[in-house]
Amino acid sequence: MKTATILIQCPDQKGIIAKISNFIFKHDANIIQADQHSTDPENGRFFMRIEFYFDDSVLPVKKLNKDFSELASTLSASWKIHYKEIPLRMGILVSKYDHCLADILYRYQSEELNVEIPFVISNHNKVGNLVNQYNIPFHHIPVNPDKKEAEAKILELVCDNTDFLVLARYMQIITPHFIEVYNKEIINIHHSFLPSFKGANPYRQAYERGVKIIGATSHYITENLDEGPIIEQSVQEVSHKDDVEVLKRKGRNLEKITLANAIHAHIESRIIRYLNKTIVFK
Amino acid sequence: MKTATILIQCPDQKGIIAKISNFIFKHDANIIQADQHSTDPENGRFFMRIEFYFDDSVLPVKKLNKDFSELASTLSASWKIHYKEIPLRMGILVSKYDHCLADILYRYQSEELNVEIPFVISNHNKVGNLVNQYNIPFHHIPVNPDKKEAEAKILELVCDNTDFLVLARYMQIITPHFIEVYNKEIINIHHSFLPSFKGANPYRQAYERGVKIIGATSHYITENLDEGPIIEQSVQEVSHKDDVEVLKRKGRNLEKITLANAIHAHIESRIIRYLNKTIVFK
Amino acid sequence: MKTATILIQCPDQKGIIAKISNFIFKHDANIIQADQHSTDPENGRFFMRIEFYFDDSVLPVKKLNKDFSELASTLSASWKIHYKEIPLRMGILVSKYDHCLADILYRYQSEELNVEIPFVISNHNKVGNLVNQYNIPFHHIPVNPDKKEAEAKILELVCDNTDFLVLARYMQIITPHFIEVYNKEIINIHHSFLPSFKGANPYRQAYERGVKIIGATSHYITENLDEGPIIEQSVQEVSHKDDVEVLKRKGRNLEKITLANAIHAHIESRIIRYLNKTIVFK
Amino acid sequence: MKTATILIQCPDQKGIIAKISNFIFKHDANIIQADQHSTDPENGRFFMRIEFYFDDSVLPVKKLNKDFSELASTLSASWKIHYKEIPLRMGILVSKYDHCLADILYRYQSEELNVEIPFVISNHNKVGNLVNQYNIPFHHIPVNPDKKEAEAKILELVCDNTDFLVLARYMQIITPHFIEVYNKEIINIHHSFLPSFKGANPYRQAYERGVKIIGATSHYITENLDEGPIIEQSVQEVSHKDDVEVLKRKGRNLEKITLANAIHAHIESRIIRYLNKTIVFK
Repeated sequence: MKTATILIQCPDQKGIIAKISNFIFKHDANIIQADQHSTDPENGRFFMRIEFYFDDSVLPVKKLNKDFSELASTLSASWKIHYKEIPLRMGILVSKYDHCLADILYRYQSEELNVEIPFVISNHNKVGNLVNQYNIPFHHIPVNPDKKEAEAKILELVCDNTDFLVLARYMQIITPHFIEVYNKEIINIHHSFLPSFKGANPYRQAYERGVKIIGATSHYITENLDEGPIIEQSVQEVSHKDDVEVLKRKGRNLEKITLANAIHAHIESRIIRYLNKTIVFK
Repeated sequence: MKTATILIQCPDQKGIIAKISNFIFKHDANIIQADQHSTDPENGRFFMRIEFYFDDSVLPVKKLNKDFSELASTLSASWKIHYKEIPLRMGILVSKYDHCLADILYRYQSEELNVEIPFVISNHNKVGNLVNQYNIPFHHIPVNPDKKEAEAKILELVCDNTDFLVLARYMQIITPHFIEVYNKEIINIHHSFLPSFKGANPYRQAYERGVKIIGATSHYITENLDEGPIIEQSVQEVSHKDDVEVLKRKGRNLEKITLANAIHAHIESRIIRYLNKTIVFK
Repeated sequence: MKTATILIQCPDQKGIIAKISNFIFKHDANIIQADQHSTDPENGRFFMRIEFYFDDSVLPVKKLNKDFSELASTLSASWKIHYKEIPLRMGILVSKYDHCLADILYRYQSEELNVEIPFVISNHNKVGNLVNQYNIPFHHIPVNPDKKEAEAKILELVCDNTDFLVLARYMQIITPHFIEVYNKEIINIHHSFLPSFKGANPYRQAYERGVKIIGATSHYITENLDEGPIIEQSVQEVSHKDDVEVLKRKGRNLEKITLANAIHAHIESRIIRYLNKTIVFK
Repeated sequence: MKTATILIQCPDQKGIIAKISNFIFKHDANIIQADQHSTDPENGRFFMRIEFYFDDSVLPVKKLNKDFSELASTLSASWKIHYKEIPLRMGILVSKYDHCLADILYRYQSEELNVEIPFVISNHNKVGNLVNQYNIPFHHIPVNPDKKEAEAKILELVCDNTDFLVLARYMQIITPHFIEVYNKEIINIHHSFLPSFKGANPYRQAYERGVKIIGATSHYITENLDEGPIIEQSVQEVSHKDDVEVLKRKGRNLEKITLANAIHAHIESRIIRYLNKTIVFK
């Protein structure tokens, strides 16, 4: 038995759920969970996540893909399928703040996160020890001001060997060129409640503005820095007693959980992107 | 065009979603939202909420009911249907603390809550003025220690004229006899984070125990006081500075929102009861 | 016996708490609560709130004021004192969305808020009924594009008869002229998690951006719209299922509580302003 | 320069803050932060935390202790003092669930937690590797049903070498004998929102009850299991979709943060115990 998850989106019309659930039923598969969303019952856009298991000796993966592809084309749908038995390969980029990295690696080792981690890349050497403790390859790739060389090296590593990337507090701007060449999802954690406090030093910005709640935001990277589709946000009360260092400490807790939740949603195929937003089926 | 919502539960088996969505499709209705849940993909229990609109000149309500009833019986399902155009009739019982009542009446008047309120019943006369301001009939029914007389009067009012009841801080124990005779849903707000602090004076109990967070719980009433299926809970941080009066003040905010959210979920047919729990499709 | 609260701020130096608490002790008053904050133990700014009761037949208010004034001048401090027995007079301005108004009036009537409300002013006639139910004078002052006439009328009402103003969703920009002439605190509720989504239609902005949490912010009005010192913020999770109308509905709950909490903090003399921030002693 | 924090409690009376702040002033020390609380302005109990720095070449620690002791005795106060430069020695006990342990060790290594960790003790061998990565001594002490032998071994290790203990998911009941002999603070993390779901398998209990929010509670250990003074609580929304495994996963995030916050409060001398409650000066 295999477990698959299909994410699909298409123009809304009558009968889509019937067609997809009939497909699953006729292929003798068993729905574990189905969620759908429509932006509008009339002329909206339709989104669906369907998780099911099936006997691949009866329904070979190849046939499943081919048959569903045919259905999807009648719906003018874009879609993707993920097989749970094949963990996604998650590349991690990190700078010197390693709290998110340590958190992810612990979750990985304790089998909370169903991924493979082919390597961790950092522009700082100091996180190497931590990575090595988990027997994961570590690559130190320093970044010069023009970035070209470093990005080329990183692309060489990640293009073929990862299914998505996580920027676990990677304090380098990713160029549009990198995003275009990599052409897969890149998840970032920004240490503020976006769209507040984009850019550098968000905790300092939050302190200066005197907010009473701080936040962290995990989002997909796009060409527009800190403006990609938001996946997950978390918040925490603060007060006048909290200086910038305390905001950072409280914020680290938010960053770790927010990024971990976003990774969970991504690897369980719970997220569909549309326009500059996400549908996250929880 | 009419809008209907069906809530259905049955033993899980392959093809249920296909059958139900085919039914909707073949009756030329248009799904607005569909949610489902299964306790287990293998031999679990299946729950579904499906909201759709249809042309009742083509599909008369009578036929819709008859046809769906046939489908449901092939699935050994229990189900109910609600038509959005027919607002539920919500009876309110309240004692002297009227913050939840005031909150509900405001939401009702501002058309946030799609209900009819045939009357408000109280064992205290003091809330009458508030009720009258909203042009809603008010019944003052004092409660003696043996309750029988009062409950009889209340039953006479509510049995035929309400679809469900809300206990908006009604500080009287509802007897099993009342629950049995009324035989429809009764929503209560308990001023603690259940199952902590059942019974009387929960804020006093919370204060004595020194908890750092207080809560409120909205649940359906069953024969076992404060032990019915939980619909909604909310919480709020407190500290050693907060005496019982402050806990009550903070708690009133929780009670109002928690009860209002539970009423929303109920009147939008988002709740299915099973065993002593709820599935709430948000 | 009378209860007074002093708010004081001054350059930090050794011995301030000793001096102030000695003052209270020597005047035979009894501290109920004392809180202080310093931005930095070395050369920072010092803030203190001290609540105490005293026998005004022994220590007349006049003498208390005079003596404390002398102490404060030795500290180069700015300060104010408030006597609990003299409720602040709170003027309310509101437009057509009256949920915050209804919430405040209920809290006022149920004696949760220790204030006087000399009147409610609105640029819409529709809220008059609600106000009249509470036997509070209502003034309908329409606003023309140039605002001058309306602001003049409002100033005539508020300058002598209120101690502070609350903008309970008053959808008109307050001019710098008004702020200068009124010269007392004005509390606003903004329906977003500032500094995100300043300006008009913040729920629409939040929807477009696809945030996963919305908020509300209560702040003092300054010349810079939506940029005054933040008093209180609250947040609420949202999802892709929530359209703009649902965001507004969820947001109303936040707005009501956030504004009510800010009013509580203000009338209990818990807030000190400094630069563009607040110290809120909870 | 040295930094000290005094925690003091005594019967409330006029002038205590004056006396204590005068003491600090006259000893030429500089207050960094002062907080106090009284359960009642009339005949209540008074609690204070005062953090200050001083020049120990002018005011030797011995003299500071002696002088303050004299003051405290005039107030019938119990008190303790902690010098920031001398980190507390924190012994950790843990069973096989090591997420809290990993979290604490990371915070320790990254210098977020100002403690010494003389060793980690576990009744399971499996956490040894994790501990060794941080170069901290590890003791494997299996527990037999009668516990006596294990507790004796543990007491031998902890009595002289630790200032307090942390039970970081130590799934063994601590006997009253152990508590009496150790006679210092023991901080526990319980994986529920106490007082709900005391005892074993709280996530299973929460699942069975159908709560909509789960929690974690950190508290001091007393002879009554899960009933000691609460230090910190955190909560997280859950839904009908979350089975026991998901509750555990979400709960681990709560447990880690709740315990870490409690440890922070303890080592910064922010907690005073009174009756079965805590005053936590944040």
